[in-house]
Amino acid sequence: MVYCGQVNKGLVEMLQRRGVNAVGLSGLDGRIWEGPRKSVIRSVEKGRTRVIRDDYTGRVEKVNTALLRALAAQGCLPVLTPPAASYEGEAVNVDGDRAAAMTAAALEADTLIILSNVPGLLRHFPDESSLIARIDRRRIDRFEEFAEGRMKKKILGAREALEGGVRRVILGDARRAGPIAAALGEKGTVIQ
Amino acid sequence: MVYCGQVNKGLVEMLQRRGVNAVGLSGLDGRIWEGPRKSVIRSVEKGRTRVIRDDYTGRVEKVNTALLRALAAQGCLPVLTPPAASYEGEAVNVDGDRAAAMTAAALEADTLIILSNVPGLLRHFPDESSLIARIDRRRIDRFEEFAEGRMKKKILGAREALEGGVRRVILGDARRAGPIAAALGEKGTVIQ
Repeated sequence: MVYCGQVNKGLVEMLQRRGVNAVGLSGLDGRIWEGPRKSVIRSVEKGRTRVIRDDYTGRVEKVNTALLRALAAQGCLPVLTPPAASYEGEAVNVDGDRAAAMTAAALEADTLIILSNVPGLLRHFPDESSLIARIDRRRIDRFEEFAEGRMKKKILGAREALEGGVRRVILGDARRAGPIAAALGEKGTVIQ
Repeated sequence: MVYCGQVNKGLVEMLQRRGVNAVGLSGLDGRIWEGPRKSVIRSVEKGRTRVIRDDYTGRVEKVNTALLRALAAQGCLPVLTPPAASYEGEAVNVDGDRAAAMTAAALEADTLIILSNVPGLLRHFPDESSLIARIDRRRIDRFEEFAEGRMKKKILGAREALEGGVRRVILGDARRAGPIAAALGEKGTVIQ
């Protein structure tokens, strides 16, 4: 079972030391992230498909925006992490980027920033000079082929956020100084 | 450094599975528990007093009742655990029973229940037949001598809760079935 851990609480402490009233929560807390638990998982290993039953994974269908807004009204900044809650109240692991996309859409966010250890979507991974600076949301299909590894889920999350009403998704570089300000300045891959 | 961990999140999941919308939080989250960090710790080992500097321990002076009430208004049940926040936003370890006492007083609670692995305060620890069933709050001083080990902090917490306006403190047995209902039925040591 996956529980929120040191990374989440470490971020909360770093924010608190800077005077930001952060609150670390998993999606299980207050059922912030809720959805069905998958009954069957398909896993492809060395070209063979394995079927795994009774694993605790799922996906987010509902976001408790009332609770998130109540926290914001108290001056708090939620810092969210998997797991989510199944409809039966079980802790289920979910993809963090897709959960963030669902959250951005549910909160009617203007912008979703997804940071990782690359500058954005690269045309020729891992060549960082091949950064794709802008993607028209109507043409996102054509760019999915460039996504390697975990970037695939980030592109899927970006698509889901845009389909959910988010105006702009920015894939930014977590390694640089001031990564959020840089991303808001459209350093990275802007999908709009 | 102490962070909230598996016990807190395990309780949240058990409550969620029973339909209770629990939210697991440390006192650092939203500065629910805030207070000074001790600059110097005195520790007595084998009769010698050691002075430890720069340890991350403290005590709770302020409780963010606005946030706790906002969570309750959302139908959520907070499940709290150390650490607390220092006034500088650092995570500091605090005694959980005394933090619970501060929280009960700040929320103007009628009753504080403190559960442990004994039936309550025992006149002759560990003889469980020597349970002290009732203590008059004006005479709590005379009973402090019976507290052994961790029970000392529970009695101190009880005193602080009563001084803070809580009407009744019950030291109950965590090992029995339905421990909270039993404690509310005044099984255990009732201090009033």
